[in-house]
Amino acid sequence: MSDTFVVVGGDAAGMSAASKAKRDDPDLEVVVFEKGEWVSYGACGLPYYVKGEIQSLEALVSVTPEEFREERDIDLRTGHEVVSIDPDERTVTAEAVSDGDSESVVQPYDRLLIATGAEAVVPPIGGVDLEGVYTLGSMSDGKELREYVARARDGESFQQPDRGPACRFLEDCAGPVAVVGGGYIGIEMAEALAANEYEVNLFQRSGRVLTGFSEATSEAVADHLREREVALHLDAEVEELTNDGDGAVEAVVTADDRVPVEMVLLGTGVRPRTALAEDAGIELGETGAIATDAYRETSAPDVYAAGDCAEATHVVTGEPTYASLALTANRHGRAVGQTVAGRPTEGGGVAGTAAVKAFDVEAARTGIVDEEEARAAGFDPVTETIEANSRAGYYPEGGTVTVTLAADRDSGRLLGASLVSEFGEGAVHRSHAVVAALTEGATVFDLEDYDLAYAPPFNTTWDPVLVAAKVLSGTLR
Amino acid sequence: MSDTFVVVGGDAAGMSAASKAKRDDPDLEVVVFEKGEWVSYGACGLPYYVKGEIQSLEALVSVTPEEFREERDIDLRTGHEVVSIDPDERTVTAEAVSDGDSESVVQPYDRLLIATGAEAVVPPIGGVDLEGVYTLGSMSDGKELREYVARARDGESFQQPDRGPACRFLEDCAGPVAVVGGGYIGIEMAEALAANEYEVNLFQRSGRVLTGFSEATSEAVADHLREREVALHLDAEVEELTNDGDGAVEAVVTADDRVPVEMVLLGTGVRPRTALAEDAGIELGETGAIATDAYRETSAPDVYAAGDCAEATHVVTGEPTYASLALTANRHGRAVGQTVAGRPTEGGGVAGTAAVKAFDVEAARTGIVDEEEARAAGFDPVTETIEANSRAGYYPEGGTVTVTLAADRDSGRLLGASLVSEFGEGAVHRSHAVVAALTEGATVFDLEDYDLAYAPPFNTTWDPVLVAAKVLSGTLR
Repeated sequence: MSDTFVVVGGDAAGMSAASKAKRDDPDLEVVVFEKGEWVSYGACGLPYYVKGEIQSLEALVSVTPEEFREERDIDLRTGHEVVSIDPDERTVTAEAVSDGDSESVVQPYDRLLIATGAEAVVPPIGGVDLEGVYTLGSMSDGKELREYVARARDGESFQQPDRGPACRFLEDCAGPVAVVGGGYIGIEMAEALAANEYEVNLFQRSGRVLTGFSEATSEAVADHLREREVALHLDAEVEELTNDGDGAVEAVVTADDRVPVEMVLLGTGVRPRTALAEDAGIELGETGAIATDAYRETSAPDVYAAGDCAEATHVVTGEPTYASLALTANRHGRAVGQTVAGRPTEGGGVAGTAAVKAFDVEAARTGIVDEEEARAAGFDPVTETIEANSRAGYYPEGGTVTVTLAADRDSGRLLGASLVSEFGEGAVHRSHAVVAALTEGATVFDLEDYDLAYAPPFNTTWDPVLVAAKVLSGTLR
Repeated sequence: MSDTFVVVGGDAAGMSAASKAKRDDPDLEVVVFEKGEWVSYGACGLPYYVKGEIQSLEALVSVTPEEFREERDIDLRTGHEVVSIDPDERTVTAEAVSDGDSESVVQPYDRLLIATGAEAVVPPIGGVDLEGVYTLGSMSDGKELREYVARARDGESFQQPDRGPACRFLEDCAGPVAVVGGGYIGIEMAEALAANEYEVNLFQRSGRVLTGFSEATSEAVADHLREREVALHLDAEVEELTNDGDGAVEAVVTADDRVPVEMVLLGTGVRPRTALAEDAGIELGETGAIATDAYRETSAPDVYAAGDCAEATHVVTGEPTYASLALTANRHGRAVGQTVAGRPTEGGGVAGTAAVKAFDVEAARTGIVDEEEARAAGFDPVTETIEANSRAGYYPEGGTVTVTLAADRDSGRLLGASLVSEFGEGAVHRSHAVVAALTEGATVFDLEDYDLAYAPPFNTTWDPVLVAAKVLSGTLR
């Protein structure tokens, strides 16, 4: 009898693992339980769907359930929620929900992957259950938000009498609305809503947006958000969402302010979905995500965890870290698939790399940018920020790229980078060189000498990344 | 008395060295001899000047002679040609030419940098001295070509009766003209001339353009050149340029063809200018360029060579190589400047990285792409080429990137890459990750696991570079 590989969760990590395992070992029986109806979808595309740049949710799906079942021969059971794992008996129990009836299935496994993902963090404040308060994590969240935007655009809520100050610049502007959280989801949603002519208020608890990026990046993005009429409320922790009396949200309340809104999007981060693993006695790491070894195996034998529910190893510190990002989920899922198919595969570490488009600005970050975080990891960080032309100064197009680089004082080892430029001027793709350097344990002196491609339409002779390396090297010497 | 650092040649390597040496050691006396009037200019910008996108030659100058003299305190002597070096006496002899009188100067040195650059190769065929035959290496070449284009655009030669076939698509097209050589200068000049509505014939001796790039890149660029009405003559070695009887070029003759043209641009490569070094008994390497150690010191003590006249060490093979590229010249010049100022600096190797824009396509190459070249260097190369979306498939903009990756079969070590995409879709900036990986001696398995930045407006979850690494890894395993 062939082995059975069971996967809990049918998104990036889960479906990558299932597909790779079945492809490398066609004799393996592969069973996937997914509680929802959608699998293998690009949640990163949801803001563009809400914005209206993508016309259907189906466009975000890379492989359909039918394709998994028929072409890839995977026993994919959507609408099945796994409610418990028994590592001793090597079984999972799933409940199939249809038309209100629930049916229980006990499925034995030889190897198991927990790929339960992450869930949106809802802040512990009053009013988060009111009508008009949304999060954006799942496809159904995306659907609801798009419906809201479409309904409002059709006029239902477009006659809001109390227009905020930003609205005076926009003849047709709707809203006002609030985005709570200045991370990349919050910023992408601010763009999506502003593109639909809402008057957007963005509330950020700390003093700057994109806190994982450098201050220079945060400032450049904040300046651009303001240029695009987003009302930025910094150092503004939201204390309450108030009720209009009919169960709908009416205003966002902070210590200093009360801002009337008709809709609130909570973009206050995600946390790993670990309840299932915890209930099964599987160890969590210090980050709160499921702990694994280099092969993503958990404390329970033959039970793996990958993607947004699990820890990964940071390429700079070598320590466990938590980063919920699509590429890691795909890569680690795929590695688990290879491992269970007979070829043990580590799948590599993470650098916490992230990219974001904010209207006409793009930004990326990788590694350890924050000096306090670097010190906590045992480094003595030195940081430099430069601004340089994105193309040859004489070339007719172009803008600037601002690059922040961090390195360890004694060793010169690269720790991290944060880059920002106009959209299309290459901050994001330029970060790739730094990711490679970080991962290889290179120093800033090494980076300074890289023979990067140069031609006038693409950069200056010394690419901005090299300029930053040159300046930081000079400081360290 | 302070030491004297003498530099021969006032472009990228020479002025970088002079500036850095003086900055790091202000007591040093720094003397630069430059035979022309222009120093520190971006020759890479000349095609865009000829095209008309850059309005003045001065725009290509990053630092003026006056700034070098007054602000940087460098004894810059333009119009001075160094005619001999005496390594035993530690002197150079320069001739100042003004108004036909020539004056000889003997200048002692403690340290000397030879930065004589490269010169355009003129093929050994008849007719290369005819009127209407140009090369593009110097500022004066650029000036002449721009004058030609401007004159023709003003009508002087616009009524050419014998229009070629491409011209039927272009109402106002001028020409026909020829570009000989399908390297990046040839292609950039084809774009510059076509943008001025010349009917452009591009002659390439071998079967494809951009021979240092992958075949997939060559094909993509060739297809695009044809789309833009450039008549590509491949496998077409030029045998002669014929005389119209009045001393001007009339036609390009190959074994199979005779193509009437009113102008010819020779873009048939460059060679290092080494005569001065050779006459002084300084050793050349096997590549024909000046041999140096890791600090760019030549066989003559305290005599350095950097930039387009000198060899450099290839990061993949560890062997001397010759690559005439702006960044290397800048970087090695700067390293020599640091060395003579008291801090010995190697300045790193080269990967032979190059980038080119061809109309609305961009391409880059790095390392060893050619399998024969890889075998000659002792590797057993395996190459894969993939085509992937440049942005998330559902994102409204975007195109494709074609990536060729080469790695060694046994070790998996990355050898080189060639990338091509629509202009703006990131082939060039994506090459940076591969340059970093090559330089660090990484394998394709390492590259596959890099945590590169991802967001839908910038790439697919697996960036095309990662897709290529994944496919090549699969082939190697």
